[in-house]
Amino acid sequence: MPKIVQCVPNFSEGRDQDKIARIVEPLKNKEGFKLISVEPDGDYNRTVVTLLGDPEKIIEALIPFVGKVEEEIDMNHQSGEHPRMGAVDVIPFIPIDGVTMDECVGYAERVGEKINQAFDIPIFLYAEAARQKRRVKLPTIRKGEFEGMKEKIKDEKWVPDFGKAEIHPTFGVIGVGARNPLIAFNIDLDTAENKVANNIAKAIRGSSGGFAYIQAGPAFLEKRGHMQVTMNILDYKKNPIYRIVETVKMEAARYQVKVTSCEVVGLIPKDTIVRSLKYYYACEGKKLGDLSIDEITEEAMKILLFRDFDKLKIIEANM
Amino acid sequence: MPKIVQCVPNFSEGRDQDKIARIVEPLKNKEGFKLISVEPDGDYNRTVVTLLGDPEKIIEALIPFVGKVEEEIDMNHQSGEHPRMGAVDVIPFIPIDGVTMDECVGYAERVGEKINQAFDIPIFLYAEAARQKRRVKLPTIRKGEFEGMKEKIKDEKWVPDFGKAEIHPTFGVIGVGARNPLIAFNIDLDTAENKVANNIAKAIRGSSGGFAYIQAGPAFLEKRGHMQVTMNILDYKKNPIYRIVETVKMEAARYQVKVTSCEVVGLIPKDTIVRSLKYYYACEGKKLGDLSIDEITEEAMKILLFRDFDKLKIIEANM
Repeated sequence: MPKIVQCVPNFSEGRDQDKIARIVEPLKNKEGFKLISVEPDGDYNRTVVTLLGDPEKIIEALIPFVGKVEEEIDMNHQSGEHPRMGAVDVIPFIPIDGVTMDECVGYAERVGEKINQAFDIPIFLYAEAARQKRRVKLPTIRKGEFEGMKEKIKDEKWVPDFGKAEIHPTFGVIGVGARNPLIAFNIDLDTAENKVANNIAKAIRGSSGGFAYIQAGPAFLEKRGHMQVTMNILDYKKNPIYRIVETVKMEAARYQVKVTSCEVVGLIPKDTIVRSLKYYYACEGKKLGDLSIDEITEEAMKILLFRDFDKLKIIEANM
Repeated sequence: MPKIVQCVPNFSEGRDQDKIARIVEPLKNKEGFKLISVEPDGDYNRTVVTLLGDPEKIIEALIPFVGKVEEEIDMNHQSGEHPRMGAVDVIPFIPIDGVTMDECVGYAERVGEKINQAFDIPIFLYAEAARQKRRVKLPTIRKGEFEGMKEKIKDEKWVPDFGKAEIHPTFGVIGVGARNPLIAFNIDLDTAENKVANNIAKAIRGSSGGFAYIQAGPAFLEKRGHMQVTMNILDYKKNPIYRIVETVKMEAARYQVKVTSCEVVGLIPKDTIVRSLKYYYACEGKKLGDLSIDEITEEAMKILLFRDFDKLKIIEANM
């Protein structure tokens, strides 16, 4: 079975389209993996790149990619709404198929060491790849950002995992890690009241006492004219979609508000959808058989109310 | 407004009824507070005492109570299923009415100091009263139990908050703390399958990714012949009863299992019930008016499906 990982490098340029095109050039049309998407955000001044495929080939291509970023971005003249500590800010590896989390930790370690050797950029290992507890959460590492990292890295608590205790003068540092797939998921409500969406978000998100692996908040969709509960599902096995959607329906009921549809941003693993379809089938005393990607797509739109969805949003449809 | 606290001392004797009677004597028929219940457990070899009323009067009575326990229990000859580090193992203060958590921390500190001065028993302050992060969770303090505490207390990390670094030779040490009301709550299922109750418990409990303030597991009720999900609700404001019950119903639906009734063990604050009644009223577009304790009791049995319930289980009915 071929090993498939997802790799989502984030770099600190989201405005200059020419520059972005030059930066992603080393990731285009390569053998062994696909460049699934390049998503720049002007306000954030940041671009999210999604790669899917053979980890060895991805590691190989990441070196010239980081080299290109080093040429193109000087962090001393960069600003945007998204916090960042490096010109490439993070490189997470995500196990998708035929790969364990431990292997992804190994990929993070290898590419981290290679990048450090090639460009003298200090590397912090984070999430599952973290070697110290305080480095598990990215925001803890990133605190102080590029500007603060010059001093922070000299603190013995913040000696980098690869490289010397001195930032690269124009690039900064990179967080390289391994983590489970994160699903960006939104639930649409037939209300324009922020308070309702906010109360519902509080009910489901871990930080307010809700489900441990849910980060959620309210968002108003100007063009569509309604609120949604926007969330990251950090562990879809422990916090499956159906449970979140049903809990949102339950909370919404007290306001006479209904869930009208759901939205997946970026990619979603097939298994996430299948697990939730199984729940609704089981509630009706039925068993879910083996479905094709097309059938799963259709059922997800019908039963899970996914809107603006197509099969290419399912990771496995790109493999 | 009179200040009302709940105080729940636990002591390490649950078998010898005469001894138990002598121990609780200093807490009986006192002015200013009520001895709500004395619940010995033979397997645990432990008794849970519930006091409700004026904190000053409770603090006063706790001194002769601890003195009685010192006379009656020698921890060198005590064993039972429940972990314990002292003859009186814990004394938590719980704010109920007209009292802040900070005041309860003050009561814990005062009674801790008084007990130490009177009997030379070392005191660890825990939960909200903890002065160190590692002392917040009782199990962390209690680890090693009475037998291990002789050495543990000499470690500089485990210097007691009151008293010298040496256990009382027959009594051990006491954890004195302040915490929010904890509700012991069980949800009955019309199934005898452990696996179903266990899966549902996993869906709702914080440690498996469920609601942050829920500890839950499966339990089979021999006499009644069905499973229940048995739980502690550690913060009923953040994890209200209706949300837990509705989530259990949702999870049970996939097994064609129904929630038949719910059970409160010990006391429950009125506000917990009122908050959950409000939810069900709101779902029907109705507002809950001011209800008497009798009406709240009736609604709780009807709408929240409480069985074996009466108004004396509501804290405020005892005030």
